[in-house]
Amino acid sequence: MKIAVIPGDGIGPEVIDQAVRTLHEVAPAIDTSYFDLGARNFRETGRLLAPETLDEIRHHDAILLGAIGDPTVPAGTLERGILLEMRFALDHHINLRPTKTMPGAPRVLAGDVNVDLLVVREGTEGPYTGNGGALRVGTPHEVATEVSVNTRFGVDRLLREAFERAAVRRQRLTIVHKPNVLAFAGSLWTRAADDLSALYPDVEVDHMLVDAAMLHLVTTPARFDVIATDNLFGDLITDLTSALGGGVGLAASANIDGSRRNPGMFEPVHGSAPDIAGRGVADPTAAILSVVLMLHHLGLSREANAIDQAVQDHIASRGPESCSTEEIGERIRSRVGS
Amino acid sequence: MKIAVIPGDGIGPEVIDQAVRTLHEVAPAIDTSYFDLGARNFRETGRLLAPETLDEIRHHDAILLGAIGDPTVPAGTLERGILLEMRFALDHHINLRPTKTMPGAPRVLAGDVNVDLLVVREGTEGPYTGNGGALRVGTPHEVATEVSVNTRFGVDRLLREAFERAAVRRQRLTIVHKPNVLAFAGSLWTRAADDLSALYPDVEVDHMLVDAAMLHLVTTPARFDVIATDNLFGDLITDLTSALGGGVGLAASANIDGSRRNPGMFEPVHGSAPDIAGRGVADPTAAILSVVLMLHHLGLSREANAIDQAVQDHIASRGPESCSTEEIGERIRSRVGS
Ligand SMILES: CC(C)[C@H](C(=O)O)[C@@H](O)C(=O)O
Ligand SMILES: CC(C)[C@H](C(=O)O)[C@@H](O)C(=O)O
Repeated sequence: MKIAVIPGDGIGPEVIDQAVRTLHEVAPAIDTSYFDLGARNFRETGRLLAPETLDEIRHHDAILLGAIGDPTVPAGTLERGILLEMRFALDHHINLRPTKTMPGAPRVLAGDVNVDLLVVREGTEGPYTGNGGALRVGTPHEVATEVSVNTRFGVDRLLREAFERAAVRRQRLTIVHKPNVLAFAGSLWTRAADDLSALYPDVEVDHMLVDAAMLHLVTTPARFDVIATDNLFGDLITDLTSALGGGVGLAASANIDGSRRNPGMFEPVHGSAPDIAGRGVADPTAAILSVVLMLHHLGLSREANAIDQAVQDHIASRGPESCSTEEIGERIRSRVGS
Repeated sequence: MKIAVIPGDGIGPEVIDQAVRTLHEVAPAIDTSYFDLGARNFRETGRLLAPETLDEIRHHDAILLGAIGDPTVPAGTLERGILLEMRFALDHHINLRPTKTMPGAPRVLAGDVNVDLLVVREGTEGPYTGNGGALRVGTPHEVATEVSVNTRFGVDRLLREAFERAAVRRQRLTIVHKPNVLAFAGSLWTRAADDLSALYPDVEVDHMLVDAAMLHLVTTPARFDVIATDNLFGDLITDLTSALGGGVGLAASANIDGSRRNPGMFEPVHGSAPDIAGRGVADPTAAILSVVLMLHHLGLSREANAIDQAVQDHIASRGPESCSTEEIGERIRSRVGS
């Protein structure tokens, strides 16, 4: 098996180093090839993601990515040109973002609320399609538009994945959208969910307005099992759920092409965090848990579980002192297989 | 002074009854005219908001609204046909939603975090303009779009209000958008904020991605003073902030035309809550606090403060038992002026 590793910007290389070393602890035979994408490469070559690079990446079994984004490059250039470019080119229409409170992890909510949910976020439609425009830019008469594009095909394949995931979890699926205002897209989501639910009689389906979801996620998070939602709503919801699960330091995500024609991309939910980059203080746990998602996706569940258990043991037993990136990686690795 | 009262649907009439009685406690001379808008009127007359009704409402000094929305009417019909119609027709481009933790109010966050922030949400642009469309509806090839429309004019007038509000609070303004993905609208917001900030040297401006804002609101809410954001992001953020402030039972909002050519509309953030309607258990506090915002806007600050203080005293002293709508109203009124 061959993994394409993209360390990226900021803290990306630091956390990916720990993640790859942890991967090799459980699966020493997995090959890794490194791709230097991000700010440095862009500054040196003026290129974001060259077609031939994408082609090479395509011929791997999975992609492990650190983070993309740098303050010295105009906002969004790298994110759109590399990260989103890959998600779209590799048809990563399924974005899985699980949250589960772990004993020992920080808790932001009052009371002893356990959260165990999975957000199934659409990855190739919605307001992320780049279908915007602007006129009279820089004048008092500037108009800027952003277009959310939604197709029955795209919503159906996302929802089918969400139903499948709910069926093997607690059989509760919450469809989150805003049909009372976004009438066209919202109605499409609602009808697609209603039609599919006939095929999954055991899954209880609930429709929730996205604003109400923000509220319920912090007041009654235990009501959620699987949440299916659009690209932008999923982006907002999963930063919130990552906070509920102990912070972005622990939140992992999987970008998947459901047809499996393209390799999946596994990445921490956090960004490149330029403010703490290079200081060796970034928490590599989210990157390491992204390896867990990757191993599960590759069918290597024994290896995935070994790392997952090591992470949980580490978090349950760690003290209040803050550890360096290297120390956290070491402590997790020392527990793998022990 | 004349107030147009729209009790609306569900719990709307119940909470508005308490709100109007509380208003009359401090300002007995204020006239109220009632407008029967919502599900019942729609079912009986087939009309949502008739032009002549809107004209009558226009000739009031302010509007007090309960809630709009009913499960027996297709999702969004009443919200778009009445509530949003009014916000747009009366050019309510400024939507103010304050959150302040009150002693005695429920807390969702761990630790003793105080929240004191004001969301200044744009009200007449963004994805709320109804600029969507759909084709091949009901077929596997359906495409549905939603268009977010943003103008320099609209963003400027919203941001100017946000800067003004920040200047008389703690001089911190956080601009919340998603320029790394929504490049056209995001860039417009960023440039407008940067240009205006030259006129307000004392206000410290911070740009924050909307996803990051969701996280920071629950991990470090004390960092926020004034948040300026777009219509849809503001919708999501303010359901979250209302949870932080003790729940939707306590969250009030003001829809204002900054030019003051049209009357402002004051309403609780909560919806019509059909599940508990008619049972006399809805919390009228958010509606009563909407009267406080209304009185402030009308320049009746003494009267506003009297109710505000009564609400705070009531919340600080109430026991754990749950009270009826009527009891809460009575208890607050008994403290007004005492
Ligand atoms: C970096 C950015 C483009 C990205 C997104 O908006 O999807 C990130 O926030 C995420 O959630 O993975
Ligand atoms: C009812 C709905 C149209 C409305 C909105 O989306 O603005 C509500 O959620 C609000 O926040 O006032």
